[in-house]
Amino acid sequence: MSELSTPNVPHFSAEERDTLYRVIAARRDMRHFTPNTRIDDATITRLLQATHQAPSVGLMQPWRFQRIRTIQQREGIAALVMAERAVTANALGERGEEFLRLKVEGIRDCAELWVVSVAPDDGTLFGRRTMPQAMALCSVACAIQNLWLATRAENLGMGWVSMFDPLALAEWLALPAGSQPIAILCIGQVEAFYSAPMLELEGWRQGRTLDDGFFT
Amino acid sequence: MSELSTPNVPHFSAEERDTLYRVIAARRDMRHFTPNTRIDDATITRLLQATHQAPSVGLMQPWRFQRIRTIQQREGIAALVMAERAVTANALGERGEEFLRLKVEGIRDCAELWVVSVAPDDGTLFGRRTMPQAMALCSVACAIQNLWLATRAENLGMGWVSMFDPLALAEWLALPAGSQPIAILCIGQVEAFYSAPMLELEGWRQGRTLDDGFFT
Repeated sequence: MSELSTPNVPHFSAEERDTLYRVIAARRDMRHFTPNTRIDDATITRLLQATHQAPSVGLMQPWRFQRIRTIQQREGIAALVMAERAVTANALGERGEEFLRLKVEGIRDCAELWVVSVAPDDGTLFGRRTMPQAMALCSVACAIQNLWLATRAENLGMGWVSMFDPLALAEWLALPAGSQPIAILCIGQVEAFYSAPMLELEGWRQGRTLDDGFFT
Repeated sequence: MSELSTPNVPHFSAEERDTLYRVIAARRDMRHFTPNTRIDDATITRLLQATHQAPSVGLMQPWRFQRIRTIQQREGIAALVMAERAVTANALGERGEEFLRLKVEGIRDCAELWVVSVAPDDGTLFGRRTMPQAMALCSVACAIQNLWLATRAENLGMGWVSMFDPLALAEWLALPAGSQPIAILCIGQVEAFYSAPMLELEGWRQGRTLDDGFFT
C-alpha cells in the first residue's frame, strides 16, 4: 500500500498533534449558555459530518440524532429532566440539598438541543455477538465524543444531560420502537468555558489523576 | 467570568478547527500493523493524558486500562479472540466463509496491546440513576475515542477488537470482581492507513451517508 502519500491519508505534524491535544484538554461539559443565539447552517453541517465519521462496530452506525425544533418539545424535555433531578436529589440523601444548588443543564438557553438515541437493533453480528447492546452503545458514545470535540474546536459549548427517564423520553418524542435515548445534548455559544470540570469548580467531586490506577 | 482570555481556555482558529476535522476524518479501525516496533514512553504518556481527559458521568472516571506486557498474555488473548471469531463465523451462516477471509485484529503484530474495562460500580448516582450501566459504559467509550484520535494525530494506528467473551477475558486477566472488559486495543506503527473503513474496502458492508436518516 502506498496510501501514506495520498491526500486522503494525511501525516500529521507535531504542531497539528498538539492542536488535537489542546482541543481534548479544553473540552468541558457545559451547562451555562448564552441565551437567544443560534448556530449557522454551515457549522451545523461540519458538526454532523464529524459526528458521522465516528467508528462503529461492524460499520452499523447505530446513532440517531433528533434536532428539537419547537419550544413545546424543549419545555417537555426540560420538565422530564427536572423530574429526574428531584428524584436524584432525594436518592442522594444528605448531599441532596447541595446537589440541588448545582446547575445540571442548559436546556432552555442553548442554541441547539439534540436528542441522541441508539437505533433499534439491525441484527449486526460482526464484533458484537457477545456484547450486542454494549457495542452499539459504545459506537453512539464515540459519535457523541467526536461531536463534543468538534463543538469545542468551533468554540461552542456542549453539555451531555443524562438525567432523565429514557422510557419517558422515548415516549414523549414518539421514537421508533426499540430506540434507546441516551443523551440530551445542549449545544451553543457560551460566555466562557469552565477552566476545569464544573463539578470540580463547584466542589462536588475531585477528579483523580493519571497515576491513580487507571492505567497499569 | 473572564476565562476566555486565559491560557487554560483557548480560542481555536479556523485552521486549528480544520486540523481536528482532518484527524477525525483520517481515523481508521486498523488491523494491519508493522511487526517488531515499539512506542516510546513520551508518546505513551501523551496518549494516556488525552485518554484521561475524557468526559465521564458524575466525574466517575470509570475507565481502567491494562497494558499487556508478556507474550504469554498476548497469546492467551489472541486465542480468546480466535475462539470467538470461529463462533461468529458459524453464526453468520452463508457469509461465514467471507467473514473468515477478513483480517479482524492485529494482536500479535501491534506495538502495544491494551485491555479496557469498565471499573466495578462505585455507586455514583449523579447523572446515572436511571441508566447506571449505560452511562458508565459511555464514559469509557468516550475515553477510547479520545485515545483513538490521539493515536491518529501521532500517526499511529489503533484497532478496537470486541470479538471476545467478556467473562472469559476477565477471568484470564484476573480482573477485579465487577469489571467489564469491553475492548482489546491494538496500537502501533502501520505501513499505511486505510483510505476508507476496511469493511468498505473489502466489500463487507457500505457505510451510509449523512442524509440517510441519522439526523432529523
